[in-house]
Amino acid sequence: MQRTVFNEDHESFRQMLRSFIEAEVVALHDEWFAAGIVPRDLYTKLGELGLFGVSVPEEYGGAGLDTYKFLAVQYEETTRAGVTFGTNVHVLLALPYLKLLANEAQKKRYLPKFVSGEEMWALAMTEPGTGSDLSGIRSTAKLSADGSHYVLNGAKTFISGGVHADRVIVAARTSLPRDDDRRFGLSLFAVDTSSQGWTVGRKLDKLGLRTEDTAELSFVDVKVPAEDLLGEEHRGFSYLGLNLASERWGIAFASYAQAAAAVRFAQQYVEERQVFGKPVASFQNTKFELAACKAEVEAAQAVADRALEALDAGELTPAEAASAKLFCTEVAHRVIDRCLQLHGGYGYINEYPIARLYADNRVHRIYGGTSEVMKMIIAKDMGL
Amino acid sequence: MQRTVFNEDHESFRQMLRSFIEAEVVALHDEWFAAGIVPRDLYTKLGELGLFGVSVPEEYGGAGLDTYKFLAVQYEETTRAGVTFGTNVHVLLALPYLKLLANEAQKKRYLPKFVSGEEMWALAMTEPGTGSDLSGIRSTAKLSADGSHYVLNGAKTFISGGVHADRVIVAARTSLPRDDDRRFGLSLFAVDTSSQGWTVGRKLDKLGLRTEDTAELSFVDVKVPAEDLLGEEHRGFSYLGLNLASERWGIAFASYAQAAAAVRFAQQYVEERQVFGKPVASFQNTKFELAACKAEVEAAQAVADRALEALDAGELTPAEAASAKLFCTEVAHRVIDRCLQLHGGYGYINEYPIARLYADNRVHRIYGGTSEVMKMIIAKDMGL
Amino acid sequence: MQRTVFNEDHESFRQMLRSFIEAEVVALHDEWFAAGIVPRDLYTKLGELGLFGVSVPEEYGGAGLDTYKFLAVQYEETTRAGVTFGTNVHVLLALPYLKLLANEAQKKRYLPKFVSGEEMWALAMTEPGTGSDLSGIRSTAKLSADGSHYVLNGAKTFISGGVHADRVIVAARTSLPRDDDRRFGLSLFAVDTSSQGWTVGRKLDKLGLRTEDTAELSFVDVKVPAEDLLGEEHRGFSYLGLNLASERWGIAFASYAQAAAAVRFAQQYVEERQVFGKPVASFQNTKFELAACKAEVEAAQAVADRALEALDAGELTPAEAASAKLFCTEVAHRVIDRCLQLHGGYGYINEYPIARLYADNRVHRIYGGTSEVMKMIIAKDMGL
Amino acid sequence: MQRTVFNEDHESFRQMLRSFIEAEVVALHDEWFAAGIVPRDLYTKLGELGLFGVSVPEEYGGAGLDTYKFLAVQYEETTRAGVTFGTNVHVLLALPYLKLLANEAQKKRYLPKFVSGEEMWALAMTEPGTGSDLSGIRSTAKLSADGSHYVLNGAKTFISGGVHADRVIVAARTSLPRDDDRRFGLSLFAVDTSSQGWTVGRKLDKLGLRTEDTAELSFVDVKVPAEDLLGEEHRGFSYLGLNLASERWGIAFASYAQAAAAVRFAQQYVEERQVFGKPVASFQNTKFELAACKAEVEAAQAVADRALEALDAGELTPAEAASAKLFCTEVAHRVIDRCLQLHGGYGYINEYPIARLYADNRVHRIYGGTSEVMKMIIAKDMGL
Repeated sequence: MQRTVFNEDHESFRQMLRSFIEAEVVALHDEWFAAGIVPRDLYTKLGELGLFGVSVPEEYGGAGLDTYKFLAVQYEETTRAGVTFGTNVHVLLALPYLKLLANEAQKKRYLPKFVSGEEMWALAMTEPGTGSDLSGIRSTAKLSADGSHYVLNGAKTFISGGVHADRVIVAARTSLPRDDDRRFGLSLFAVDTSSQGWTVGRKLDKLGLRTEDTAELSFVDVKVPAEDLLGEEHRGFSYLGLNLASERWGIAFASYAQAAAAVRFAQQYVEERQVFGKPVASFQNTKFELAACKAEVEAAQAVADRALEALDAGELTPAEAASAKLFCTEVAHRVIDRCLQLHGGYGYINEYPIARLYADNRVHRIYGGTSEVMKMIIAKDMGL
Repeated sequence: MQRTVFNEDHESFRQMLRSFIEAEVVALHDEWFAAGIVPRDLYTKLGELGLFGVSVPEEYGGAGLDTYKFLAVQYEETTRAGVTFGTNVHVLLALPYLKLLANEAQKKRYLPKFVSGEEMWALAMTEPGTGSDLSGIRSTAKLSADGSHYVLNGAKTFISGGVHADRVIVAARTSLPRDDDRRFGLSLFAVDTSSQGWTVGRKLDKLGLRTEDTAELSFVDVKVPAEDLLGEEHRGFSYLGLNLASERWGIAFASYAQAAAAVRFAQQYVEERQVFGKPVASFQNTKFELAACKAEVEAAQAVADRALEALDAGELTPAEAASAKLFCTEVAHRVIDRCLQLHGGYGYINEYPIARLYADNRVHRIYGGTSEVMKMIIAKDMGL
Repeated sequence: MQRTVFNEDHESFRQMLRSFIEAEVVALHDEWFAAGIVPRDLYTKLGELGLFGVSVPEEYGGAGLDTYKFLAVQYEETTRAGVTFGTNVHVLLALPYLKLLANEAQKKRYLPKFVSGEEMWALAMTEPGTGSDLSGIRSTAKLSADGSHYVLNGAKTFISGGVHADRVIVAARTSLPRDDDRRFGLSLFAVDTSSQGWTVGRKLDKLGLRTEDTAELSFVDVKVPAEDLLGEEHRGFSYLGLNLASERWGIAFASYAQAAAAVRFAQQYVEERQVFGKPVASFQNTKFELAACKAEVEAAQAVADRALEALDAGELTPAEAASAKLFCTEVAHRVIDRCLQLHGGYGYINEYPIARLYADNRVHRIYGGTSEVMKMIIAKDMGL
Repeated sequence: MQRTVFNEDHESFRQMLRSFIEAEVVALHDEWFAAGIVPRDLYTKLGELGLFGVSVPEEYGGAGLDTYKFLAVQYEETTRAGVTFGTNVHVLLALPYLKLLANEAQKKRYLPKFVSGEEMWALAMTEPGTGSDLSGIRSTAKLSADGSHYVLNGAKTFISGGVHADRVIVAARTSLPRDDDRRFGLSLFAVDTSSQGWTVGRKLDKLGLRTEDTAELSFVDVKVPAEDLLGEEHRGFSYLGLNLASERWGIAFASYAQAAAAVRFAQQYVEERQVFGKPVASFQNTKFELAACKAEVEAAQAVADRALEALDAGELTPAEAASAKLFCTEVAHRVIDRCLQLHGGYGYINEYPIARLYADNRVHRIYGGTSEVMKMIIAKDMGL
């Protein structure tokens, strides 16, 4: 059963990336893990490799390829190597906003540095006490009298990439809601994080994703130039969610990749490890566990690949993306747990990639919309 | 996300079949269910519709289409209507043997009646006390002194279609195994069930599949003409398993179709049924259960469709077929159980198709090789 | 770990019942199963054995033992032998109503025949289209002008024991609800099923519990003597649910007993059955499956036993009963499914008790309140 | 359903411990968590509270109570407060060795400091590359010519409490195995960790249990006085496993306590947290999830309590302990996962106890014997 989703270009990209990871990442990753953050210059290197510019138009320094397939390869290769880059927010989350909302001048200012990795982007929606419920946003951005800038005040939390980010897309209230339009009044800004009044608070101590810096942010009278307003003023609410399908596909595909990697790690482990004088791999239970996992991984691959083709074709509906995310993240959860178990005590030591996968994957059923939200979306689409 | 597996021909076949089921099957099915068998003339009608001849070459009365897609449509349509034909053994199991092993003269004799439904076929491998372990077959076929016929003795069990069958492919021992070849000595025969000494024993009372006649057979000095030997004498063992991939795909796809139908039945039920003054469908638990089922059904569809394309392309490996069967049958089991639960007490009454699906589906994880056998095959393919 | 729930009396009752089942039931049970009903005279024999009178006061012919422990033994023994009596409705469901609601005269009329098995009782609450929602009952009972009798009209469905029953406790509307009391207006009657106008409709064809007659009933102008009114007129609603804790405990305990029996059947099967030249029991997967099932059965036993002690002490709360039912029925479902799987194809043949258990058990998560209703009760008790 | 396992003494111990935790632990625990270790003086305080001496005879400074019930209360109270002490190895693992193997002189030397917390104990069995397979131990202890001491060389890994420990029970080889006794030749020593040549290597970075110091140890010519030999020389193998039942009960009970705490944390969270303008607790899915968890927690409690009584009575068999561990750890895994999910994004932040529970609990299915080993033990006990 030939997998049809990748062509030669993707495969040579895969080889290039694999070599890079082996040469420049693997040996250092333990250190990054212990530090809880990757070094800033990793991003410049990834920019040079072209990871950030795949789908950015050529005129702004990108490769102009309207596809998520290279990102898919990236998920497979990083996970396979047991490493994480923490660049998801830059490419999967922030870029679609820039492509959709930035005007020509903004694109010229933002995208080349985006592509090169000189400027890393993040996204700041969630506030302490809100969550998926964006109508509760209380950060404000007041236009100055002369209209030259906005004054931003407020706080955000759970901001992936919040420590390293050079620019952050911030959602803030620029007006009260209107009686006839409760979604009126939010605006999006591409805020320079070196601005005065911008403070990076605590780096959050998370269950997993330890190399990914997740931070609290606070803004006190931050001046945001008017030309950093993204899209129309007051219309921010309608922009949120424009790229939910791609985000959810991304999590679904990454989950599939994690499950596939977990099976690979476990197989390697049980083939090497001896108990009672024979390899763990020789026990029937080991074989059955791995085979059961393999069948689930293949199903997740079928789902993730099918969704990838649909996404590239612009046809992936919200309900289909939700369905793929729900399914692939559940599979990954089950598979990683079983593969960790096959590692015995070593599965509990972070030195082994399976232990990190277990912790990293847990958030997949939560972020990008929880499994419960996915079910709501699917049910609605079924007419329920 | 357009499903790409079916084209217009398949869809018009679907319409034709749907109309037939509505007109000729639905009203009578309860009666067949109570009787535990379908009427013999159903098969002649299905033959007329062309269901048996799709992949039979045109020179023998078939349509000459080398594809399982029409069978896939049939699985979807029968399950959707909550009915069963019991023709699986004829088309999915027996036909591949005829196409692979029958010589020209045999094809001329067998296939036209196969296509028309005049002669229904079954397969008799399993014997009391054997199971998947075919080396234990004890039925014997002795060649007569003049070489004109074999004399068949023995017994078989779990023979699907065994009551209605006109011809049965029987595996019997024609020689002792050889020291250098333990698989030597089995032969296959296409036995006419009207032969003297052929007895249909008990119809087995099964948990489900009640309209499918499953029987015990016994043979006492049955004369089988030499020209009904299929393939080479003594080489039967190597023929068994030639079409395991298609058989397992068939069960996988049928399981997917059952799961899809279960969701449909449950949705219909909960939308109509009121409790505490509102439809069951309006409860969050109902929505979440159906949404979770839907996501699993979509995954099973992705797997079953991908396997179908590979099967038609002649590329479905044994391990891939095993993986698809394992996955789709597990999904169907889980989904049907949850959908039955949504029916409350009505889910326990055979009048409702969900109750029959629950019982019918249970054998999918057993026949065509149990889930445990599937895991062995997958593990072996992984090099474990 | 000594099990403390049963004493010597219970154990000698167990021996007596086991002997009876071996001598009088096992050999005939296949016939009853095929017929879909047990013979009426079984009940007289069970009455003689004392199965119906355990908790009936001595003055009415019972043993006057206020305990469910003998019933628990009965569940264990019937299930262990792979047989069913269909007497649950008589003892577990109907008797508590009689003990609670019948006046002295009624007790004298009803209970001796109840104990002897001369009169079998059933319970008729559910109507077509209602379900657990009893406020939708539309059967009516109008008091005659002279107050001597009620005239009963209506229909009921899902009535366990409805074919054999001699007396049925029927819920019917005797008045419209009152504005200040929506539960006003239902009454309960102990109706003689030989009354004119009482019709037993279809015996329902169920997924399982085939020896238990489940019927539709209809009443056309059935005359019910006023002395067969149970409890106060119009107050029936408050009586329903008085014995829900015991009913749910009964289902929980029976589920535990089924799971325990399933493990026993499977162990027996895999020890006898050979594949590839060695017993199925010798495979690691078989051992692990049975061990996993055993651990769940022991948990179910701990829960069921603890609930039994609480029930006998009059302390089992509705939430605890719900919790025990939810847990034990889920365990039984999982365990029976795994044990059936270990039987391979034989697990699908009704001759094997595991196949019948699979079908029989499925209703445990539904009747006596579905698993969803159990969750509602538990959640409410948690203050949610 | 009154829980019968605890009496007034246990409850007043509970109150005392709860107060201590609130006053002396809760506020500091975040710091300990970040540091990955508890401060040494915690142990002196716990000693003063009497936590270490419960079952130590009074003549050695203990309370002389032969029961695990106070430890059970400790599990419930620490988990409830979301804190960990890391004292399990001291009390649950090391103490039984001392009680069983130490001679009178040793008891006098060891136990008073054990009780006071002046000397903390650990256990060093596992070596790099062995695991549960103790026959692979390669550390050696050679008796000096004058018989005054042993010279210990080797390395150990996964040693809980290995950083703080003052005395460690080390298994080392004192002789080659004998042809007629493959288990001959291991001895146990109570080694003073301040001895020359004793090195504490890396503190292992684990998935969870972050406040518990788990270390690698290495021994280079460590002089162990002959009077620190525990039990008979060469007979160490037979001592290992003497207290497996209590260890496994401990893990089982702790898992139950974790599951119970998880439900409590989740209920608290969903009652406070608002989404779409109403508390998360008001959604049916939330209620059903918590109710399902509650039912499982009650089952785990029934199992853990029953095993506790049997343990205290000296009747808990290895198979029963294995069954309780298998069941309770599986329940805890499922329940904690569901309760984390109800926390949404906050469930992924270590500040919330549920996130730590998720990581902490994962090792319960591994240490003290994996779930797979538990199944082997149960299966063997079943005669499989």
